[in-house]
Amino acid sequence: MPETTPRVLIVGAGAIGSFYGAILHRGGAQVEVVSRSEADVIRDHGFRLHSRDMGDLTFRPAAVHERVEDVAEAPDFVLLSVKVLDDLDRAALIRPAVGPKTVIVLVENGIDIERPIHEAFPDNPLVSGLAFVAVSRTGKAQAEHKAYGRLVIGEYPSGAGNAAERLSALLTAGGIECPVSGNLVTERWRKAVWNAAFNPVSVIAGGATTTTILDAPGGEDFMVTLMQEVCDVAAAAGHPMPEELPVKSIGGTRKMPPYHNSMALDYLNGRPMEVEAILGNVIRAAESHGVDVPHLESVYRVTKMLQNRVATEG
Amino acid sequence: MPETTPRVLIVGAGAIGSFYGAILHRGGAQVEVVSRSEADVIRDHGFRLHSRDMGDLTFRPAAVHERVEDVAEAPDFVLLSVKVLDDLDRAALIRPAVGPKTVIVLVENGIDIERPIHEAFPDNPLVSGLAFVAVSRTGKAQAEHKAYGRLVIGEYPSGAGNAAERLSALLTAGGIECPVSGNLVTERWRKAVWNAAFNPVSVIAGGATTTTILDAPGGEDFMVTLMQEVCDVAAAAGHPMPEELPVKSIGGTRKMPPYHNSMALDYLNGRPMEVEAILGNVIRAAESHGVDVPHLESVYRVTKMLQNRVATEG
Repeated sequence: MPETTPRVLIVGAGAIGSFYGAILHRGGAQVEVVSRSEADVIRDHGFRLHSRDMGDLTFRPAAVHERVEDVAEAPDFVLLSVKVLDDLDRAALIRPAVGPKTVIVLVENGIDIERPIHEAFPDNPLVSGLAFVAVSRTGKAQAEHKAYGRLVIGEYPSGAGNAAERLSALLTAGGIECPVSGNLVTERWRKAVWNAAFNPVSVIAGGATTTTILDAPGGEDFMVTLMQEVCDVAAAAGHPMPEELPVKSIGGTRKMPPYHNSMALDYLNGRPMEVEAILGNVIRAAESHGVDVPHLESVYRVTKMLQNRVATEG
Repeated sequence: MPETTPRVLIVGAGAIGSFYGAILHRGGAQVEVVSRSEADVIRDHGFRLHSRDMGDLTFRPAAVHERVEDVAEAPDFVLLSVKVLDDLDRAALIRPAVGPKTVIVLVENGIDIERPIHEAFPDNPLVSGLAFVAVSRTGKAQAEHKAYGRLVIGEYPSGAGNAAERLSALLTAGGIECPVSGNLVTERWRKAVWNAAFNPVSVIAGGATTTTILDAPGGEDFMVTLMQEVCDVAAAAGHPMPEELPVKSIGGTRKMPPYHNSMALDYLNGRPMEVEAILGNVIRAAESHGVDVPHLESVYRVTKMLQNRVATEG
């Protein structure tokens, strides 16, 4: 097979999507994007990205499409990095751009978020990615990369296949770490142990920082209890976690300065929250495996009430 | 014993305290009040109270004291209706006004709130009261009575003694229902079934109304679960509740228009919340009786985190 320049289409070019787009661009890919609302800005200036570690990452995509339907020829990779929300059919969103050989790449939060994509495109390679990156949007088509960048990827439902290796090579050439895992779903559960506990709790605690959560009376024990329940579900789903993970995670969190996680920021800024992807799917996995998770369930129910308040009371 | 006009001292003359003060005044008592911040207004105008059902209840107290220490002669009744908060020693607050025969009356929310008063004044009759009243403060020494008014009272730790009967006679003469219960603590648990569940949940759901809580996905079932846990604790503490109470309470709540309970209003207005009196004491009762309450405990922990957020993040 002749070496041609791989074409990557970024769907959801927010801070994360445009950051990995820039890395792929640096790695030699031909990067195109879909953006409904910012197409003009991107065409005029490209994506303006500044990285504290890597300097200027500004790049101009090879093409800017206003709708996925406008993509004439299926790309080699579709990188999807939109929020996973109840009212968004992500499979329908990308369908117009997915050809028979297109690799679908998910750089998104949550548990079990691959399932609907895999069911919609059972014959396409599906690469699932976990981003460990601090990057913030600072304006239209503009972002600041503050720290980290590692993307852990693997094929879904499991394995470290050719598609993941090709993507890893591009991202590594672009300057970030991109390890390929044969058990990406296990990695996803490992990340969920923290996220499913801390993200919704920070929201229903009024948009609290990690430090405020841990400093409340009984706070550390409660977070360990929640994380242990996630571990119980992960184990029942075939992804056992190290026994000491919850306590170690508290220690790691304690070492960081107080900060608002992504869901807390969404809440405080009035943006939609990925409650189902991050916690609801853990609850459903618990139900389907018969695992009792009363503390997680309580957090989930109150978080849904708060979503209902925002929706109905404003 | 000759019939003399009974003297009642109101400590905590907010909406509830001044409403029952007005009723006692109408019932023939000599009502005095303690008010640090509003003494001048009360001396000038009295308490201005309007009742939708009973008309004008405005009254001028027989004496207005700025501090409890200023009360020269111990009254027949001290009616305490301050919020039950961690940093307020209620026994120390009333001690200067409590004589050997003074009846102490608590018109306050929560579970086990009598214990510290009973321990501090073991020889004084202690009357505990549960107010079923909708009355709101509308300004300095000014309130609006919207509905209800019933005060269920009983002696603590149990019994329907002479002190409760005397108080009931005054309040009944003043125009409200005041049944005397021989098992006031049981009545308090019955009220706690709703309060311990709905009050903190409304807060951590962002200050939500009852309707928003019940309309969220799984909302009704979750509130029943919480109320059932309160019933389990009540039963272990010797106060068994009717089996159908949680489900019936949901039905009753459904029949009312959407509303913010007292803790939700405190939260939304930035006022201190009675988390320990209303829920923390239920959790401690569960612990001391070995009852498992994972859902209530979760709600409690998150509510404490939110309090910590308000205190530290502002």
